[in-house]
Amino acid sequence: MEAGTRIVDLSADFRINDPSIYKEFYGNDHPAPDLLDEAVYGLPEIYRAKISDAKLIACPGCYPTSILLPLLPLIRENVVNLASVVVTSLSGVTGAGRRVETDYLFAECNESIRPYGVPKHRHLSEIEEQLSIFAAKQVAIQFTPHLVPVNRGIITTIYIELTRKIDSDFIDAIYEKAYADEPFVRLLGNERFPDTKNVTGTNFIDIAWRLDLRTGRAILMSSIDNIVKGASGQAIQCFNLMRGYPETAGLQTP
Amino acid sequence: MEAGTRIVDLSADFRINDPSIYKEFYGNDHPAPDLLDEAVYGLPEIYRAKISDAKLIACPGCYPTSILLPLLPLIRENVVNLASVVVTSLSGVTGAGRRVETDYLFAECNESIRPYGVPKHRHLSEIEEQLSIFAAKQVAIQFTPHLVPVNRGIITTIYIELTRKIDSDFIDAIYEKAYADEPFVRLLGNERFPDTKNVTGTNFIDIAWRLDLRTGRAILMSSIDNIVKGASGQAIQCFNLMRGYPETAGLQTP
Amino acid sequence: MEAGTRIVDLSADFRINDPSIYKEFYGNDHPAPDLLDEAVYGLPEIYRAKISDAKLIACPGCYPTSILLPLLPLIRENVVNLASVVVTSLSGVTGAGRRVETDYLFAECNESIRPYGVPKHRHLSEIEEQLSIFAAKQVAIQFTPHLVPVNRGIITTIYIELTRKIDSDFIDAIYEKAYADEPFVRLLGNERFPDTKNVTGTNFIDIAWRLDLRTGRAILMSSIDNIVKGASGQAIQCFNLMRGYPETAGLQTP
Amino acid sequence: MEAGTRIVDLSADFRINDPSIYKEFYGNDHPAPDLLDEAVYGLPEIYRAKISDAKLIACPGCYPTSILLPLLPLIRENVVNLASVVVTSLSGVTGAGRRVETDYLFAECNESIRPYGVPKHRHLSEIEEQLSIFAAKQVAIQFTPHLVPVNRGIITTIYIELTRKIDSDFIDAIYEKAYADEPFVRLLGNERFPDTKNVTGTNFIDIAWRLDLRTGRAILMSSIDNIVKGASGQAIQCFNLMRGYPETAGLQTP
Repeated sequence: MEAGTRIVDLSADFRINDPSIYKEFYGNDHPAPDLLDEAVYGLPEIYRAKISDAKLIACPGCYPTSILLPLLPLIRENVVNLASVVVTSLSGVTGAGRRVETDYLFAECNESIRPYGVPKHRHLSEIEEQLSIFAAKQVAIQFTPHLVPVNRGIITTIYIELTRKIDSDFIDAIYEKAYADEPFVRLLGNERFPDTKNVTGTNFIDIAWRLDLRTGRAILMSSIDNIVKGASGQAIQCFNLMRGYPETAGLQTP
Repeated sequence: MEAGTRIVDLSADFRINDPSIYKEFYGNDHPAPDLLDEAVYGLPEIYRAKISDAKLIACPGCYPTSILLPLLPLIRENVVNLASVVVTSLSGVTGAGRRVETDYLFAECNESIRPYGVPKHRHLSEIEEQLSIFAAKQVAIQFTPHLVPVNRGIITTIYIELTRKIDSDFIDAIYEKAYADEPFVRLLGNERFPDTKNVTGTNFIDIAWRLDLRTGRAILMSSIDNIVKGASGQAIQCFNLMRGYPETAGLQTP
Repeated sequence: MEAGTRIVDLSADFRINDPSIYKEFYGNDHPAPDLLDEAVYGLPEIYRAKISDAKLIACPGCYPTSILLPLLPLIRENVVNLASVVVTSLSGVTGAGRRVETDYLFAECNESIRPYGVPKHRHLSEIEEQLSIFAAKQVAIQFTPHLVPVNRGIITTIYIELTRKIDSDFIDAIYEKAYADEPFVRLLGNERFPDTKNVTGTNFIDIAWRLDLRTGRAILMSSIDNIVKGASGQAIQCFNLMRGYPETAGLQTP
Repeated sequence: MEAGTRIVDLSADFRINDPSIYKEFYGNDHPAPDLLDEAVYGLPEIYRAKISDAKLIACPGCYPTSILLPLLPLIRENVVNLASVVVTSLSGVTGAGRRVETDYLFAECNESIRPYGVPKHRHLSEIEEQLSIFAAKQVAIQFTPHLVPVNRGIITTIYIELTRKIDSDFIDAIYEKAYADEPFVRLLGNERFPDTKNVTGTNFIDIAWRLDLRTGRAILMSSIDNIVKGASGQAIQCFNLMRGYPETAGLQTP
C-alpha cells in the first residue's frame, strides 16, 4: 500500500468495516484498522464504481457471495421482512480450504452430510454488515452451512417473509432490473433450479426463486463455484475493473 | 383388511387423513377413503399406543420422520411460533427410489447439489397435517428438499422462532422428557452435530439443537437413514409393536 | 462423402479395417465396406501425415487411445513379447455414454467397483488390429475394463514381458523419441504416477512407466479424459490437422 | 505370549516367515524372529487346522486375501504358469488406513483414479511367500494396486497363463472342490462379475472367472471388504476357530 500498489485481498481482513465485529468473529484485534476506510467490498455487481477506483479490495467469502447477490435486490426494494431472513448453504469440501485434518479425509466426507458452524459462522459478520448497510438498519440473519461430498460448489437457499403481497412477475422484474446486464449472473426464473454442476469452473452465479402464496414467503436459490465466483474468479473480475480491462477477461473459459 | 390381516403400509395412501388434501398433493381421488379412519400414522415415538392396537399403519415418509420427531416436542410445549417454521432437508439419492431416469444417473448426481420440489413437495401434506393435529390449529411450514450425492441418509435443519425467552437447558429438558427412553432416538445436545454416516444402516434418528440468542430462534437438526428409520426400519418397529415383540427386534444390526 | 465433405467420425464404424472382425465384435454386417479403404485411424501421434490428407477419419475409442499410445513405441522398438500383453483399464461412468439404465444409476455406481466386458470387450477389435499392423503379425492381448465411481477419466495399466534385457534409460529414450515434441503427450517418467484428476477436461495423455527387474516386465500406465483425448478432443485435434490449423487450436482450455 | 495368551495379530509382523524378506520390504530387522516359527498365516480357507491349534495368528493383509483365495486352488492343481501371474487390484481409500495426509483428503481422492506402489508394494512379500509354499518353488508375480474413490472394498483381477488346455467346467470343478463348503466364499462362476458393493460390511469373498481361448489365459476376479474379510472380520473368523466357536459367529451381520 505504501508503495502505491493496488491490492486485491482474498483474506478476510478487510471484509468487515467495524473492527469490533472483526474481533468478535475472528478472535484477535484487527491488524490494520487505519486501512479499513480504504477497503472496498469486492462484489462487482454491487460496488462496481467503487471497485474501479479502489486501492484496496476485500474479496468477499464464498458464502457471502452466494447469499448477498440474490438477497440485496429484494432488500433494496423494501419487500423483505428483515427479521425473517433464514439461510441454508450446502458447500463442497474445498470450501474448507485444503486443511490436512481428519474431518476432511475422504472416508470422513464421502457418504456424509453434516451441518456445522451453527449458529455463528465467521462469514455471518460480513453478510450482516452488508445487509445492514443496504437496509440502513441493523440486520441479523439465521445462517446454517452444511458440508456435502462434492469437490466444488455451493447451493444457497434463502427464505424471506415478504412485507407486502407481491406476485411472481414483480420478483422477476426486480431481478431483471438488478442483473439483466451482468455478465456473470444468470437468472433462472421461477421454474428452473440451480445445480452446482452447471457452474463448476465458471465465474457464474445462477439465481432462481419461488413465491409461496401459502406462507407469504419467497425462496431464493443460488449456485456458485466456491473457488471461482466465490474466490479467485471474483478477484480477477475486480482486478479487471481496477485496470479498465474488459470485466470478463480471463473468465470466459473454465 | 377384509380377511382380518393387519397391514403396515409403506405407501403414501393412508398418511393423510383428509382426502381432499390427498387429492391436492397426489392428483387423484383417494382410492379408499372409508379406510382412512382406521389408519394410524406409524411414528412409534408419537403414536406408540395406537400403533399397538392398529389394524392399518401408514408408515411416514422419510422427510416427515426427520422433521416431526425433532419438532413435535417443542410444539407440544408451546414454545414454537407456528408461522415461523422453515425446514431445509438434504437427501441422498435413494430417497428418490430406484427410478431409472436421467436425473438419477451417476454422472448427473455426482458432483451435483440441487434443490427441488419447491415450494410444494408431496411430503408437505402429511407433515402439516401432523403439525396441525399437535398444534390444534392449521399450520403451514416452509420446506425445501435438496438432492446430494450420497447413497443413503437425510439431514434436516429446522428453524423456529420461539414464542418466549427460553434457555438451552429448557430445550434439553424438553427433549429428555420426550425421548430419554426411546431406543431409536439419540439426543446429541447443543454441542455435537448430526452426520448421516453415523446413522447409515440403522434405525436411529440423531437430534441436535442450538439456541441463537441474537435472533430468538432455535435450530433443530436431525439425521436418519432414509431407507431404515425413514422407511422399512420404521415399518418393522411398528410391526414389533403390533405383535407385542420387543420394539428393537431385528433392528439392532445394520 | 459423395458431396466431397471430409468427415471426422466419432462412431466405431470405420475404426476396424477388416469387415469380418467388425461383424464378429459388433454383430452386424459392415454398413459401408467400400469406404473402409478411405478411412484413417484418427490417432494423430501415430498417423499425423495420413490424417492431414484424409477424407474420412475414424476417431479411436477411449480405451484404445489410452492403450495404444503407451504401447506402440515399445512395439516399434521390438522389445515387447507380443504374446504377453495384459491390460487393465479403469474407467469413469461417462465411458458408458449416457445410457439411462439401472447399471448406471447413482446408487448402483457409487461405492461400487466392478470389472465388466471380460474377456472380449468391443474395443479389443481395434486395439488388436492396430497392434497387429505395427507388429506386422497377428497380436492378441488380454484386456479387462473396470467401472469406477468417477465422472470422467481412464487409467490404463499395461503389463509387458520384455524380449531382452533393457534398462530404464532405454525406455525413457524410446518415449522421448516418440513423444518429446507432442503437444498432448506428457511423459511422467519412472517415478511419478498418472492420476485422472490431472487430465480432467484436457486433451492430454499422461504416460508413466516402471521396469521390474525381478520379473522382466515393464509396467506402462496412462491417464486420459475419456471425453476429450478419448473422444471429441481427439476429433478436434484431427480436424485441426485436416484443415491445416494449429494442432492445439481450441484444445488449450478445459 | 509368555503368559500363555493366544494372539491374533492384525499387523504385518508375522505374515512373512523369512526375516530377510521382512527386512527387504519393511526396512528394519524383524523385532521377534524367534516367534516366526510359531506364527500361522490366518487364512482359514487354507490353514483351518493349523489356525485351530495356533498360539500366534498373523492375519493376512487385504490385498493378499483377495489374491491368494482365487489363485491358490489353481496353483494346487498345477494349471498355472507360475511365471505368468499378473495382478491388478483396485482399493477403496480406507485401504490406506486413516492416515491424515494430503493424499487422502476428500478433494484429492474424489474424482481421482491412480496406481501406486509399483512395482514393489509391501504386500507382495507375503503373497509371494504363500504362493511359493504352494508351488514348492520360488514364485514372483506382477502386482499393481490402484486407489479408487470408494470408502470400502477391493476388486482384484488376476491374469494367468494356463499350463495346459482346460475348459471352463474344469475351473468350475476346481473351485467347487476348494470352496463349496466354505461359509465365506461365494463362487460367482463364469458369467457373473464381482462388485464391491455386494460384499460391503460382510466377511464374504466373491470369486468369478473367465477362460479366454484366444489367449490361453484365465482371468480370476474377486471382491472383498478390505475392513472385514481383509482385516478384522478375518481375525474374528480365526478367533472363532481357535476357541472352537462356530466359524461364522459374529460375522453374519454387517
